[in-house]
Amino acid sequence: MLLLMTLILSFARGEKIDLSYPYDENTAYWIPSEIPFRFIKKTADYDRGYWYAAYQFETAEHCGTHVDAPYHFNKLGWKVDEIPLDRLITTGVFLNASSETNGNCSFKLSIKELEKWESQNGPFPNNSILLISFGWASRYNNKTEYLGPSSDKLCFPGLSKEAAEWITKSKKIVGVGLDTPSIDQGLNNEAHIELNSKNLYMLENVAITHPLPNRNFTICSLPIKIRGGTGGPCRIVAII
Amino acid sequence: MLLLMTLILSFARGEKIDLSYPYDENTAYWIPSEIPFRFIKKTADYDRGYWYAAYQFETAEHCGTHVDAPYHFNKLGWKVDEIPLDRLITTGVFLNASSETNGNCSFKLSIKELEKWESQNGPFPNNSILLISFGWASRYNNKTEYLGPSSDKLCFPGLSKEAAEWITKSKKIVGVGLDTPSIDQGLNNEAHIELNSKNLYMLENVAITHPLPNRNFTICSLPIKIRGGTGGPCRIVAII
Repeated sequence: MLLLMTLILSFARGEKIDLSYPYDENTAYWIPSEIPFRFIKKTADYDRGYWYAAYQFETAEHCGTHVDAPYHFNKLGWKVDEIPLDRLITTGVFLNASSETNGNCSFKLSIKELEKWESQNGPFPNNSILLISFGWASRYNNKTEYLGPSSDKLCFPGLSKEAAEWITKSKKIVGVGLDTPSIDQGLNNEAHIELNSKNLYMLENVAITHPLPNRNFTICSLPIKIRGGTGGPCRIVAII
Repeated sequence: MLLLMTLILSFARGEKIDLSYPYDENTAYWIPSEIPFRFIKKTADYDRGYWYAAYQFETAEHCGTHVDAPYHFNKLGWKVDEIPLDRLITTGVFLNASSETNGNCSFKLSIKELEKWESQNGPFPNNSILLISFGWASRYNNKTEYLGPSSDKLCFPGLSKEAAEWITKSKKIVGVGLDTPSIDQGLNNEAHIELNSKNLYMLENVAITHPLPNRNFTICSLPIKIRGGTGGPCRIVAII
């Protein structure tokens, strides 16, 4: 019991890195079909004799730093409120593909980079969340650089179909997050379909603004618990 | 390093208890002045040749299981995106006031119950989140029992002004959560003002459906990161 107490207290003291972008009028969202975050009403004043502020908002589930539940592309997959907590708070691993991407918005991560990670770091841990950086977070504040020139010409890196299949076949990774607007390159959907079909979830628009350790950290990725939701805003914290 | 790895992996394996209610049309919200959670649009079909589902929603920040940022009642307090992560993922303590409340919606927690907790469990830990049960979660699905008969006759237990002052003076507790719609009893606001004035946050509508350990657990309380928000939907997980 004393050991458990020590473990828990040590965890709570670990360095915490926020991997979530704030929601405001500049938050990235899926422009081909969705709506942006927007305050509907803002009440903020001293009218009651004391300060009181309370707002209301609307947003797409798939806006900002968010989770794609397996249900997003798989009618039989978990909805956002059904994803087990053991898959949301678990071991993190980090693959930095910034050099390989080299600013190319058509880049697709291949099996080669996944195998290279394992050769350098050992096998992916069981029940882990894989975070991938394409060096795209530095573009977040310029939506043309981040998303592409227009809604029918989206361009940013993503996973190849083969890499998505390699991940699901490994049976070690429960969720994949990346510093781009989508798990797929541009307007593709093959990685979405493959990962969701095996009940894996995705984390999109993850604010990986600095490299993380390759392994040996924890991720808390806690989405808003929308009953039956296809995804939703998600706060993601790495604990190093 | 090996020790740290062990600590982190042990944490990730701890039992996780979801203390968050789902968002749907029955979610409790602050009926005197706010709007409920509502889907604006639901797209779900095979029209593209594969399953695709993506929804949009609107809600009050102060709806369902949510955080009251210090800014809610304190113009100089932290907004929801400014609350330090070290205060959101930290040590939890639990005070079960169900017996003292005994179903009385006018009950206010007093200093006596706080002192009794310390006499039984030792001093409140530094930087801790205090969760309080009034035995109110069992009423959640009956909104008249949970909230009171009407929006101008709200009745549920809460903190007394004296208890709120005792908490802020202790300087050990960074946030207070409870299984009722508000930190204050009914339509009062004195506990809100006191806690927010000292940059403490509140967690409201916490789904404490079963007793927690009195101490020695971790809470991850991760709100949606609304820039400048007065609060917001929050996923709360206890890790035992």
